[in-house]
Amino acid sequence: MHDGFERVNVIRVRDGRRSVAVDYAATEEPLEVRLHGRPFAVIMRTPGADRELAAGFLLAERVLASPDDLGTIEHCTDAGAEHPENIVNVTLANGSADALDQVLAGRRLVAMSSSCGMCGRLSIESLRTSAPPLECAWRVSRPALSAMPDRLRAAQTAFDATGGLHAAGLFTRDGALESSAEDVGRHNAVDKVIGRMVMRDAVPLADRLLFVSGRTSFEIVQKAFLAGIPIVGSVSAPSSLAIILAEDAGVTLVGFIRGDRFNIYTHPSRIDG
Amino acid sequence: MHDGFERVNVIRVRDGRRSVAVDYAATEEPLEVRLHGRPFAVIMRTPGADRELAAGFLLAERVLASPDDLGTIEHCTDAGAEHPENIVNVTLANGSADALDQVLAGRRLVAMSSSCGMCGRLSIESLRTSAPPLECAWRVSRPALSAMPDRLRAAQTAFDATGGLHAAGLFTRDGALESSAEDVGRHNAVDKVIGRMVMRDAVPLADRLLFVSGRTSFEIVQKAFLAGIPIVGSVSAPSSLAIILAEDAGVTLVGFIRGDRFNIYTHPSRIDG
Repeated sequence: MHDGFERVNVIRVRDGRRSVAVDYAATEEPLEVRLHGRPFAVIMRTPGADRELAAGFLLAERVLASPDDLGTIEHCTDAGAEHPENIVNVTLANGSADALDQVLAGRRLVAMSSSCGMCGRLSIESLRTSAPPLECAWRVSRPALSAMPDRLRAAQTAFDATGGLHAAGLFTRDGALESSAEDVGRHNAVDKVIGRMVMRDAVPLADRLLFVSGRTSFEIVQKAFLAGIPIVGSVSAPSSLAIILAEDAGVTLVGFIRGDRFNIYTHPSRIDG
Repeated sequence: MHDGFERVNVIRVRDGRRSVAVDYAATEEPLEVRLHGRPFAVIMRTPGADRELAAGFLLAERVLASPDDLGTIEHCTDAGAEHPENIVNVTLANGSADALDQVLAGRRLVAMSSSCGMCGRLSIESLRTSAPPLECAWRVSRPALSAMPDRLRAAQTAFDATGGLHAAGLFTRDGALESSAEDVGRHNAVDKVIGRMVMRDAVPLADRLLFVSGRTSFEIVQKAFLAGIPIVGSVSAPSSLAIILAEDAGVTLVGFIRGDRFNIYTHPSRIDG
C-alpha cells in the first residue's frame, strides 16, 4: 500500500484484440491536514511521507515561518476516525489557540493552484459523490478513440511553442473534436471545455467524450461525472482513485491511448471493437 | 498575451557553450473568481476562456448544480481593480444573498487538489512575496546539473511501475541526491522533500538544489524560495510566472535539462561552465 502504487485489473486492447491483464496505478488518496485538531486542508496525494508532506505544505502556506514554529506532527489517533492513516494533525510550537486563530484569520480567501473537485468537502468520507452512476447506451468505435490524441494535438497551438501546456478536448460520439482548451493546469483545461458547455446550457453532456493530454486524476473523473460525460480517455496513466471513482460513477476510463493500443480500466462495454 | 504563451529570454547551454536566445513560455497568471463580488477562489491558469474556466470550476465545485444556476459571468469592471482581466465575477441565477450564503456556509473545509503556495492569499496583489531575494555565493557545475535527471530517475521506483508519478529531489552542491519523493501531485513531491528538512530543523536550505521531474510552476519556485533554495532545475518547461518570480526572488531557474543541454532562465552566474 505504501509503495506508491497498487495492482489494478485492466483490459488491454492491441490491434483490436482484447486481453485481461494486471497493471499498476499510482496510488492517490486524500490526506486531511488538521491544525490543533481543526480541519485545515485536504490534499490529494500518494501515501508515504505524509508528515513530511504536511510540514512542507505548511511552510509553503506560510503557516510555519520557520521550522521553529513546528510543534508536533503525527497521524490521527482518534479512535473514531475511519481512515486515521489519511489524517495528519499538526500543532504549532507556540501552542496557543490565540496564535492559531491569528493564522486562520488571515486566510479569508480560499485558493488553489489549479481548479479541482475537492474544495468545499466537509470530510474525507464525503469524497465519493452520492449521485447515481452514469448510464450510457451508446458505444464509441476503436478507430474514433485511437484518433483522439492526434486530433487534440493538432488543436494545441500553444504547446508546440512552449512544450508547457496541458490540453483537454470534448469529442462527439463519432470522434470529432468539438471543443478544446489549453492551460498550464490540467484541471483548468478540463474546466474550460466543460464550462463552455455550461454557458451554452448544454450540460449534461451525455453524448460526449472527454479526452485529456496528461494523467487522469480523481478530480478529472469527478469533473466528467458531474458534467454527465460517460467516457474519459487519456494518453497517459490514471491514478488508483480515478479508477475507483470511475467504476463507482459509471464512467468508462481509458488510458495510454497510443495509436491502435490502449488500456480500458472501467466499464469496457462502451468501446466498440 | 492571450495566445497562451509569451516570449522569454533564455541562455541556451549546449556542450558547454552558451548562447542567448528568445524562447516561449506558457503563460501562467492568477484568476480570482468572485461570487457576487466576494472573493471565492484564486486559480493559477493560462489566460483565455476565463469565463468558461470559472463556469466549469463552479460546476465541479458544485456551487452550480446545473447550468440553470448560472446567472451572469463577466470580467471585473471595478475601476479600482489593478488587473481586472484577472478577475471574473459570477452571479448565481437565483440571485439572492441568502442562496449564496448557503453555498458558502457549506464550505468550511479549505481543500485543494495538490498542495500549493497560493492558499490563504488575501488578494492577487499579494502574490509576490515581500521577503528579500535569495543570495547565493556558490556555483553548481555543469556536469553535476546534467546528471540530476538520471540520478533522480534512478530513485523513482514507483514511476517505473506506473508511469504516473511526479518526482522531486534535493541535491547537494556537488550534485549528490540527498532526498527524493514521488507523488501523483508535482507540488506534493516538492513539499515532501522540503518538509523532511523542516522536520530536521534544516531549513533554510541555502546550499541545496531542488530538481523536479515535471514542469516548473509559479508555486514550485515559491516553495523553493520559502525554503531558501537558490537553484531550481527541471527536465521540462517553466511557466511565465515561474520565470518572473525566480528573477524577483533570487532563484536560478534551469529548464529542459537533457544530457549536456539545458536552458537557464534566471540568475545564470550560479552555473559553472
